[in-house]
Amino acid sequence: MPLGNEPAEIVQPQFFYQARKFSFHGNRMRLPNGVEGDWTYVKHPGGAMVIPVTPDGRIIILRQYRFAVQGRILEFPAGTLEIGETPLVTIQREIEEETGHQATKWTDLGEFFLAPGYSDEIIYAFLAEGAVPLPQPPAGDDDEDIEVLFMTPAELDAAILNGAPIDAKSIAGYFRAKPHLKS
Amino acid sequence: MPLGNEPAEIVQPQFFYQARKFSFHGNRMRLPNGVEGDWTYVKHPGGAMVIPVTPDGRIIILRQYRFAVQGRILEFPAGTLEIGETPLVTIQREIEEETGHQATKWTDLGEFFLAPGYSDEIIYAFLAEGAVPLPQPPAGDDDEDIEVLFMTPAELDAAILNGAPIDAKSIAGYFRAKPHLKS
Repeated sequence: MPLGNEPAEIVQPQFFYQARKFSFHGNRMRLPNGVEGDWTYVKHPGGAMVIPVTPDGRIIILRQYRFAVQGRILEFPAGTLEIGETPLVTIQREIEEETGHQATKWTDLGEFFLAPGYSDEIIYAFLAEGAVPLPQPPAGDDDEDIEVLFMTPAELDAAILNGAPIDAKSIAGYFRAKPHLKS
Repeated sequence: MPLGNEPAEIVQPQFFYQARKFSFHGNRMRLPNGVEGDWTYVKHPGGAMVIPVTPDGRIIILRQYRFAVQGRILEFPAGTLEIGETPLVTIQREIEEETGHQATKWTDLGEFFLAPGYSDEIIYAFLAEGAVPLPQPPAGDDDEDIEVLFMTPAELDAAILNGAPIDAKSIAGYFRAKPHLKS
């Protein structure tokens, strides 16, 4: 996904706020086609996600509380890239912290953008097969409020198609994983 | 998707910025499980998207410039909800502005969250069948830099699986549309 080759020019910086994991920006900008305007956006280090699959073909997915949406949604394990970290290192940490599982076979499912209207975040997706419980489950982040669910592909298809609360990256990552799964 | 029933409490407002279509917020918050911390997020009025299909079964998708990712990506037509507007009204305007097409049959494909780690944005997805060119194409927004593409489902599947630059909502909406399409 070789983007970044058509940057917009910052004509006048207007606003900046450094949050914990990303930053907010507002700038007067000039687009490559010459149009000038004021835009606000999130600069984000990127995220990694995983579709974990157990040896018997069940998919591991979380139901977790998200304050931004004021409730619980289905979501695959994911995390923000730390400085200097490859997406695979990030997600191999997150799968352990969030699901208490580790996996034997990792497959790169490629990248996609999360919210290109106002964020530069790239999501790096992986399939993790042979997911089995860790001998000793880790403690996990204390601000995460998570249930670990096991679903067959048919059950997850139905949840997505019937409108269960879920996010875009989880559906998108699962789309890329499906050709690798036994139905 | 009946969320919003488990709000986090704002303990101390820290930061606010009103952008054109959404706002940035930073607050000290207390989650329903009692954990307290500082979080930053986007409040967004929501968006609507459409998977338009022509009478001969081709899918209409855009390749458009996005300054946040400094390049061009595949993306279904979409737009931000204006005040008081239903998602269907939003997207029936956007399909005309962005593709120059109108459609005869609209199907609600449900909602999903876009970036629940830092945004409350809900995407309302629709399938629009019988998409044909408008008698007189509208001018469109002058800050949009868009090509209109026509793909068979097999071509779009291949683009997604082979890692063409694309965003999460486009893959997610297409997942929900696929059971309705002729392969």
